[in-house]
This record gives sequence, structure tokens and C-alpha cells, in this order.
Amino acid sequence: MGQTEPVELVTIEDIEQAAARIRAFVLRTPLLPAPWAGDDERPLWIKPENLQSIGAFKVRGAFNAIGRLDESVRTRGVVAYSSGNHAQAVAYAAAVYAIPAHIVMPEETPAVKVAATRGHGARVVLCGAGQRERVAAEVVEETGGVLIPPFDHPDIIAGQGTIGLEIAEDLPTVDTVLVPVSGGGLASGIGTAVKALCPSARVIGVEPELAADTAQAFRVGHRVDWSIEDRNRTIADGLRSQPSELTFTHLQNVLDEVVTVTEDQIRSAVAELVFRAHLVAEPSGAVALAAYRAMDFPPGRTVVIVSGGNVEPALLREILAG
Amino acid sequence: MGQTEPVELVTIEDIEQAAARIRAFVLRTPLLPAPWAGDDERPLWIKPENLQSIGAFKVRGAFNAIGRLDESVRTRGVVAYSSGNHAQAVAYAAAVYAIPAHIVMPEETPAVKVAATRGHGARVVLCGAGQRERVAAEVVEETGGVLIPPFDHPDIIAGQGTIGLEIAEDLPTVDTVLVPVSGGGLASGIGTAVKALCPSARVIGVEPELAADTAQAFRVGHRVDWSIEDRNRTIADGLRSQPSELTFTHLQNVLDEVVTVTEDQIRSAVAELVFRAHLVAEPSGAVALAAYRAMDFPPGRTVVIVSGGNVEPALLREILAG
Repeated sequence: MGQTEPVELVTIEDIEQAAARIRAFVLRTPLLPAPWAGDDERPLWIKPENLQSIGAFKVRGAFNAIGRLDESVRTRGVVAYSSGNHAQAVAYAAAVYAIPAHIVMPEETPAVKVAATRGHGARVVLCGAGQRERVAAEVVEETGGVLIPPFDHPDIIAGQGTIGLEIAEDLPTVDTVLVPVSGGGLASGIGTAVKALCPSARVIGVEPELAADTAQAFRVGHRVDWSIEDRNRTIADGLRSQPSELTFTHLQNVLDEVVTVTEDQIRSAVAELVFRAHLVAEPSGAVALAAYRAMDFPPGRTVVIVSGGNVEPALLREILAG
Repeated sequence: MGQTEPVELVTIEDIEQAAARIRAFVLRTPLLPAPWAGDDERPLWIKPENLQSIGAFKVRGAFNAIGRLDESVRTRGVVAYSSGNHAQAVAYAAAVYAIPAHIVMPEETPAVKVAATRGHGARVVLCGAGQRERVAAEVVEETGGVLIPPFDHPDIIAGQGTIGLEIAEDLPTVDTVLVPVSGGGLASGIGTAVKALCPSARVIGVEPELAADTAQAFRVGHRVDWSIEDRNRTIADGLRSQPSELTFTHLQNVLDEVVTVTEDQIRSAVAELVFRAHLVAEPSGAVALAAYRAMDFPPGRTVVIVSGGNVEPALLREILAG
């Protein structure tokens, strides 16, 4: 009878060590009070990870994973596959460490993102649709570099968890944290930190209803697979991944529930962040505020994670045009 | 022979006391590294005052001025005249102190700004064009409230100066600080703090070339008066005031020079802040980045102040449409 290995959970100590490791490289984002939200029952704070210099939280995990490598291994370089913020994060962290980075990107990646990744000095390897994991494995083989996965690794989870550490430091009386869920690295890390330091706080995952595999998984008690065609329907292009066994186990352990938001709610949240918070969020970065506005959770001091700001100019124009 | 009283300059001790006074009420903004600027000779940091909960630095001066009042005086309330960020700042600070606020606004003020001011619980007194100082004096007479001027007061200068204190704390090796100039309270305060703590740093004022009275004043050595019709031509509606004797004396003391930027440069800087820094700035808040891009100053570690983010939605749409 096949038995799976028990998953070893990331601990608060792992996250505290990650915080010390990445401190010199990553912005310690402020927690922004948002009295303009106008909801006395749910006073709001924003954690603006879009202000990281590459525009997303992904630098935290990337710096922790690369910083953890033995120097003799690290100098061989790193490999990642991503068309999004993880590509930029690994390329940027590798540049800071002055090591080679090889980033595998699908051929259909927008030219501006390929150029941004190359701009950090990374080598970009273009590949056909659905080929990126295989091509990345080949690049690892050829170069001897270390694969830095986007979410399925304890060092990535611990790095993203430093956001939760900072929330607990800045607002120890927090009642609710709303966090986007895709591959689950961000929510696993934040949930682990918040539950350890503020045990009475709720941590709620947020998904687009068009990519709500984890919300469904929570209802049925095990991971479910949505087709990539289905997940690709959402405007929130950073939330089209699904948890791994490692992250799903964490999510079951630390999330109180997973809620969903509509595409219209996401668009409205992007516009609200622009005009009220003066922050530019990508759609994936705005889902937590969208859930806050849906108000489907108990009152109390509420924090929303704005996870990233790398929105396509044409899409932002369209959203702001209403 | 008429002699003017010598102006007493705000000191670094005044600014340090202001910092302690406002700490509980005002966001301690981070200094954001901006490697995306891509200029190795002038590495860039952004001081994002648009992240204050009312969207602008003006809360610093307002909280310092109101916090300095004797409690028996403060409870009578405060009076301000402004159609812009100072109105919101005084209304917000008065609400936090739970005292009455009477804000005199011109009849042509956009309804959204009147509503926002009332939203903080302030009483709005509308007045005819050019009447606001006279009407404010009447309101002071009627209510016994204290007038909180937008820039022409040492407590306002000291409050805005806390921004310079934070820059010196976060980047003691700063070489150049670029700061918008209008009435001059912000530049006076920041310049005083930076020159005291980082004496070798340059502090450069920035004006729209369509409202460049201070740039001209620096050339001729005394204040000059531009007509309000001329100053109203710039899109940067927060930069249409002129220094008072008090602020101009400070500016002469602490600014190395005053440079100007064109309307097109201002618009480009607003768009760059949106897409690269993920920050929404109003045109007045983007002039320092515009001056950075014009590169008319020596190399070195450079900080630009993004002073505010309260841009009209229609104007932001127009700017982003290019």
C-alpha cells in the first residue's frame, strides 16, 4: 500500500531566520492605515508588496532560497521557469548575488517581460507552451545551476512568510488577514507566521472564482485539478497556478477558509487602490481588497495583502476607463 | 527708514520635536530604492508621501501645528483655507484630535474635494474667488478657532521637515534631494533637516516652468510676483502658490538651486511612477522625478520627494492614455 511521506511544515523559526537572511536586500514594507475605507467595523490596513523594487513579494522567497544555498553551489548559478514576477525576482536576486541566472519563459511571454528579465542580466531561454518544466530541467543539467521553484519549496514559503512576521510586529492585535492564493507559497508562509504570533487572528485565502481550485479543494478536503484553460479565464494572471502537496498541506493547516471574488470585483479593487490608496496593483494583487469589499467575514482589524503591481499598461487603462 | 524684522529660522531641534509630536498620527514613509531607474551614476530612491492616508505630506505640518496648540486653545477648533491637500490634512488632524474644523473653500472647488473634506467631519464654508483669506479671518473671529496656514508658519515648516529627518536616517550618504517648491513650506523644512544632518548633500527645488516664480526669484535675489493667471497654467495644481517672506528666507538659506520642468516632463513622470514605481502621484507630486529625468545636476545618490497622490481620475486617465 503506497504511503506518502509526511510533509514537514515550515516553522516560525524558519521564517525568522529568513527575515534575518533577506533583510539587507528586500524592502521592509510599511503597514498602511486606510481610514478612507470608511468601515468602522473593519478598520483596514494595506501591506503594499507592490512597492518592492521588482513590483512583487516574490523577491522575498527568491532571496531566501538563493541566500540559503551553500556558496560553492550558489556560484554555479540558478534556474527558474516563469513568465511572471518569479522570473524578475530570481533574475534580480541573482544579479545582486552576482551569479548567473537562466530563466525559462514561454515563447508567448510579452516582450516587455522578457526585456525586463534580460535587463537584470539574466539569460532568457524561450520554450514552447507546456515545455517549461522540461526545458528548465535540461538547463539545470547543462549548467549545474540550482532550480529555484516558484512556490513548491520550504525556503520559498519561509521567505514569503516574512510578510506575516512584519504584520504581527506592526499590528499585533490584527483580527483578519486576507491573502491571495495561487500556488500557495504566499498564503502558506503568511499563515504560518500569523498563526504562530497572533493565534486568534483569522487568515483567509482569496481566489478569483474563475480559478477557484483551492476553494473547491477546501470544500472536498483534498486537492482538485482545474484545467489550465479554465484557470486562464481570470484577469488575475498571477493566480492561475495550483498548490502542490507541500503548500496545500500548509494551507489546510493555517487558513481558516478560502473565499472567491468575481472579475468585476477585482477590477473595482484595482481602481479603488489607484484612487484611494495611490497604489498600482495588478489584478492578482487586488483580490484581497476585493474580498474585503465583499465583507463576507467577521468584523475586526483587517489587513489586505497587495501582492504585486506589474499590470500591463493597456489593461490598467482599460480598468481605469471603467 | 522702515526695517523688516529679521526672520527667525526653524532649527533641526524644532524638526526633531515635531517628529516626536506627530509620530503617533503620521505614516513614517519608507525610502523606496528604485533600481528600475537604470542610472548607475545617480542611483534613485523615492520618498512616497502620497502614501499618507490623506494622500499627501500636508498631514505632517497640520499635526505639528495643531499638536503644538495649548489644549485650552485647541478645543476651540481650527480654521483653514484651501481647495487642496491642506484642507484634507487639517480636517483629518482635527478629527483625530476631536476638535471642530472650519475649512474655507472656493465655490469652484470640485465637489469630490468638498465631500472628502466634509467626510472627515469638517464644516466647509464656500466663498467667492479671491475671498478665502478674508472669509477665513471672519470665521476665526466668529468661532475663536485658530488659523492653520498652509505654509507660512514655523510649525508647518518644522512638521514638513520631518521628511528630511527620515531621509537622513534612512540614507545618511544622500548626495542630492529633489523637492517640489510652491509656497515653500515643504522645501524649507526638508532643506533645513537635510543641511543640518547631511551638510554635503545638495537640496534642489523643483518648479513647473509655468509657475517658476521662485526659480526667477533665485536669479534676481528677491521674491517676484507672478500673476495667478500665469501660475494657473500649469497642470501641477498644488504648485501654484508663492513663498512668503518666512519661507523664502528659508529657501535662500537651504536650497542650492531651483530648477524647472515642462508640462510634458511632468506628465511623463506621472506615467513612469505608475508603471515603474507602482505609485499614483498627482502632477505636483511628480515634478521631482521629472527633474531627475532631466538630469541637470551632478551624479550621486538621489532622493525624489513624491509629495502627493490626489489626482483627478479624468486627468490620470488622460495622462496614462499618453
